[in-house]
Amino acid sequence: MPFTREQVHNFAAGPSPLPTPVLEEAAKGLINYDGTGMGVCELSHPNLRTLLGVPDNYSILFAQGGGTTQFASVFLNLLAYRRLQHAGDVDYKPPKVDYVVTGSWSSKAYAEAQRLATHPSPNAPPFADVRLAATTKPQKFTTLPKAEDYDFSPDAAYVYYCENETINGIEFPPAGSDSPYAFPFDKVPKDVPIVADYSSSFISRAIPQIERHGIIYAGAQKNLGPSGVTIVIVRNDLLVDTTEAMKLGGIPVVPIQSEYKILADNKSLYNTPPVFPIYVSALVLKYLIAERGGIEGLAKTNGEKAALLYKTLDEAEAKGAVKCVVREKDARSWMNVTFEIIGDGKEKEFLDGAEKQGFRQIKGHRSVGGIRLSLYNAVSLESVKAACEYISRFAASCSS
Amino acid sequence: MPFTREQVHNFAAGPSPLPTPVLEEAAKGLINYDGTGMGVCELSHPNLRTLLGVPDNYSILFAQGGGTTQFASVFLNLLAYRRLQHAGDVDYKPPKVDYVVTGSWSSKAYAEAQRLATHPSPNAPPFADVRLAATTKPQKFTTLPKAEDYDFSPDAAYVYYCENETINGIEFPPAGSDSPYAFPFDKVPKDVPIVADYSSSFISRAIPQIERHGIIYAGAQKNLGPSGVTIVIVRNDLLVDTTEAMKLGGIPVVPIQSEYKILADNKSLYNTPPVFPIYVSALVLKYLIAERGGIEGLAKTNGEKAALLYKTLDEAEAKGAVKCVVREKDARSWMNVTFEIIGDGKEKEFLDGAEKQGFRQIKGHRSVGGIRLSLYNAVSLESVKAACEYISRFAASCSS
Repeated sequence: MPFTREQVHNFAAGPSPLPTPVLEEAAKGLINYDGTGMGVCELSHPNLRTLLGVPDNYSILFAQGGGTTQFASVFLNLLAYRRLQHAGDVDYKPPKVDYVVTGSWSSKAYAEAQRLATHPSPNAPPFADVRLAATTKPQKFTTLPKAEDYDFSPDAAYVYYCENETINGIEFPPAGSDSPYAFPFDKVPKDVPIVADYSSSFISRAIPQIERHGIIYAGAQKNLGPSGVTIVIVRNDLLVDTTEAMKLGGIPVVPIQSEYKILADNKSLYNTPPVFPIYVSALVLKYLIAERGGIEGLAKTNGEKAALLYKTLDEAEAKGAVKCVVREKDARSWMNVTFEIIGDGKEKEFLDGAEKQGFRQIKGHRSVGGIRLSLYNAVSLESVKAACEYISRFAASCSS
Repeated sequence: MPFTREQVHNFAAGPSPLPTPVLEEAAKGLINYDGTGMGVCELSHPNLRTLLGVPDNYSILFAQGGGTTQFASVFLNLLAYRRLQHAGDVDYKPPKVDYVVTGSWSSKAYAEAQRLATHPSPNAPPFADVRLAATTKPQKFTTLPKAEDYDFSPDAAYVYYCENETINGIEFPPAGSDSPYAFPFDKVPKDVPIVADYSSSFISRAIPQIERHGIIYAGAQKNLGPSGVTIVIVRNDLLVDTTEAMKLGGIPVVPIQSEYKILADNKSLYNTPPVFPIYVSALVLKYLIAERGGIEGLAKTNGEKAALLYKTLDEAEAKGAVKCVVREKDARSWMNVTFEIIGDGKEKEFLDGAEKQGFRQIKGHRSVGGIRLSLYNAVSLESVKAACEYISRFAASCSS
């Protein structure tokens, strides 16, 4: 028997009644979505698995706190994993952890690992030897390392990299690339877990060698949904009881909310999750599969968008109007395209004109300046074409 | 010059374009809401201050991760504070921390503190002596301690309590009460910070002795807005640099995302916050002040709702139809009313009838069973009256 909203009195202890029907439905959908008997989190798993080809031996978690929280969670869970692997060692030694630093976000992840390595006993060594396996900081993050530039430890607790650097506009080449800038999976020892931050390129194209990764995480707020939920894909053997590991000593404390295992055991409902962001993400996933041709369709469109914009920028650069920040074409991001406007007062002219034409949010990140166009899934090819026409006209006016 | 959505091309690097205009507006509103030049977080502060009378020497933070994350954050930040207070001590001793355990949530907070006290060096003492200052566990959480039952340490790093226990239906008496069950603020030494979990009673009525607290936190998802954001009110002197404290040794590592100071320094925008939950919470705050008579108006209505329902239950109990879980009237929650249905098969009869009448989500928490009606701000007096009529009819049918 159906009820109108006026006939229903909702006394839920949480999630609680909210002003709008959509939110109320969303809350119910967490437990049982649309009479399926499954919650939104559970329904999202098959769609994410389908879209990305996530193997069966991986769990998909919905966490809170964004990438910044994952900087810590990765370190804490994988040190706990390492400690349990060496449970019997009377002389347990802090492991190496290898960071690939190619921009602002991987720099922050590296800094957080160094910070969390601090041992509370003044004379004890740090919890881990946090190393740089490769960095392009000397090149001001305008390129990527080549295979020969990486120095991986033979027995690291994990290797960490950021697939796409949002601020600098750097991204590893796509799946199947034989570029010298492709991530060198073969150089990482087979039993060392590889961790990737996919926050700003998640579900924009296929993930190269997904089965070589231990952990892949991504904030939803770029390509997937509203901010407030982070997707964490974890190989099942890396889901460990951090409380047991802490009892063995030699690792930092792990807040229970950061433990991947407890999230997995509770189907991401260990405590009240961010209902609305998860709900919208689930709807977006469904839409991307049904209407956008899945990951191949997305990759095709996103590739076209990036190719068109970089071609336009290269032509404008030839005319002396602009300069692309990332010099190596194979290292250029499909998601965040960064460039500078050449000439005194020209950047303001470019931005003022762009504003009048309806282009929004194209100023570069405050830490690096310049111009940045982000081409996430929801940005249409038509918007990119319009931007290219504007850039071409601007370049023509500069050289005339 | 106004633009239509079709004329605008949004290239934001994040928060990114989303399917619906309201979300896009919400994202912009984080930085500059409605042309005010202030973001939604900043605009929410004055409204929360007004509503609750938060003194000027407190910061209001918007965090992620819910109450479970705060169980850890409270412990980590206040141990860091304590360590810095004793920066010069060559012989720093782990402090006592005092927990008041009156139900499921304070039990969890207590367990998490015990867990996080684990020192990584096998022979070192725990980071803190996690104590029970009072507990009603022997009474199965059906009452509160009286003033004489509390055993506070003279020099604890902090005292912790949960104002309202959602699962058990226990709540401390309201401001101004002279009940023996009121929280005994006067027994806590003046310089020991008091921490309160207000998750399920936040902004339902005034907070007694707000200026005696060091930290008050609350998940938004009960009385304020959608799940995904947690309000943390912190006395400014307790905002400390946890990295500096970690260097002194003797405290656990603190993930940077858990540091209150970095959230305060960055106006809760240290990383991308949960835009939509914050936005809706801000709208709800405005509405509560403008349309619901502020905290006095809310307290009046919530008091009436609770009084009416408990009166009905007491009458039904006199007829032998039901039994209230919480025996001491002063300890009964205004927000979560818990009771049992007496008699074989009677609970199913009650629930089936309730379902037909349009009452929703009234089963007790799976860990305790029985019936629970939650009376949060968004539940109207009319809904409560309808529930009371149903209970009275049910009780009459039982005794006839």
